[in-house]
Amino acid sequence: MTFSKIFENSVEEIAKLPGIGKRTALRLALHVNKMKDADVQALVNAFSDLKSKVRHCRYCYNISDDDVCEVCGNPKRDRKVLCVVQDVRDVIAIEATQQFSGLYHVLGGIISPIDGIGPEQIRLSELFQRIDNEEIEEVILALPATVEGDTTNFFIYKNISGKVPKVTTIARGVGIGEELEYIDEVTLGRSLLARTDFNQIYQKRK
Amino acid sequence: MTFSKIFENSVEEIAKLPGIGKRTALRLALHVNKMKDADVQALVNAFSDLKSKVRHCRYCYNISDDDVCEVCGNPKRDRKVLCVVQDVRDVIAIEATQQFSGLYHVLGGIISPIDGIGPEQIRLSELFQRIDNEEIEEVILALPATVEGDTTNFFIYKNISGKVPKVTTIARGVGIGEELEYIDEVTLGRSLLARTDFNQIYQKRK
Repeated sequence: MTFSKIFENSVEEIAKLPGIGKRTALRLALHVNKMKDADVQALVNAFSDLKSKVRHCRYCYNISDDDVCEVCGNPKRDRKVLCVVQDVRDVIAIEATQQFSGLYHVLGGIISPIDGIGPEQIRLSELFQRIDNEEIEEVILALPATVEGDTTNFFIYKNISGKVPKVTTIARGVGIGEELEYIDEVTLGRSLLARTDFNQIYQKRK
Repeated sequence: MTFSKIFENSVEEIAKLPGIGKRTALRLALHVNKMKDADVQALVNAFSDLKSKVRHCRYCYNISDDDVCEVCGNPKRDRKVLCVVQDVRDVIAIEATQQFSGLYHVLGGIISPIDGIGPEQIRLSELFQRIDNEEIEEVILALPATVEGDTTNFFIYKNISGKVPKVTTIARGVGIGEELEYIDEVTLGRSLLARTDFNQIYQKRK
């Protein structure tokens, strides 16, 4: 169909990437075919470096150029607060808020029986080890507000409850800028149950 | 921002691809970082093969695994009809219609002064050489219906008019399934001027 087996094979490989359909893969393949040699080499190196050179922090499993990541290696971070997240994207998102000064623990996934991901497939034993060995005062569970996220939250809670003074989860509620009429009932219900004292918000703003 | 210079560099390289934004590049990079070694190798090979192994047909510049592409090498194709297209994607699109049995000439672009693409940047001299050396009875101009396409059409026409018995362009008109009220005036106007004898369509259908 495209007159070149090699070309077709490349398109198929590119189309395996998440969110890249056959049409986009074809467009990308034709673009790469027209790129300069040096640019293709840079792109190829970029992909291969992601696997061969990018490392994971030995403590929190965040991506890193070294053995220990920038967060864990920063003496200004509060080592007694641990924020548990699904993956590196969440670390980036939370860092962007500038509202968190503790350390992270990147699970690398969440429990999802339908996808064949059980507690052993993600870095839960590493989390429990950290909690056993480090002096942690609060574990913040910042996992997705989905069934899988809730399952993982509960699993972690069951295993660490009693070993850490405080286990919290990020607030579920109405997003900033959202209209109440468009919010689903569960979220709205929860945001009523977990209502915040206005004094508290007001004092934070001051 | 992402705790790894190598990672950031890879994201930037990926984001240079057309239609891939910074966010998508980040998502792809994290995915590749999690892929199996062998899969990353296959992806890297796919990209590098596109440049190093995929060839272009010596006659029409279509992509090919050999010196001559499947179309040009097919003895059943009508060698007297030449269809001029912008790039390989157009060859694929036209082949999918199964309405064309001639040969192609892939320009590799169209004249676009705003992008710095003049007649020398695309394979026009190669086209004119083919027309001088081969016995061609009809040149079909199948370029985009844009200002750049029209400019290129006119440039080609000026150079080959008199050397080829027939120069045609694909019909511009109302697309199948389109409602007249939504068509722009120029297209609708042209489709009236270039109206087709109904007998002709009826006889083709029989």
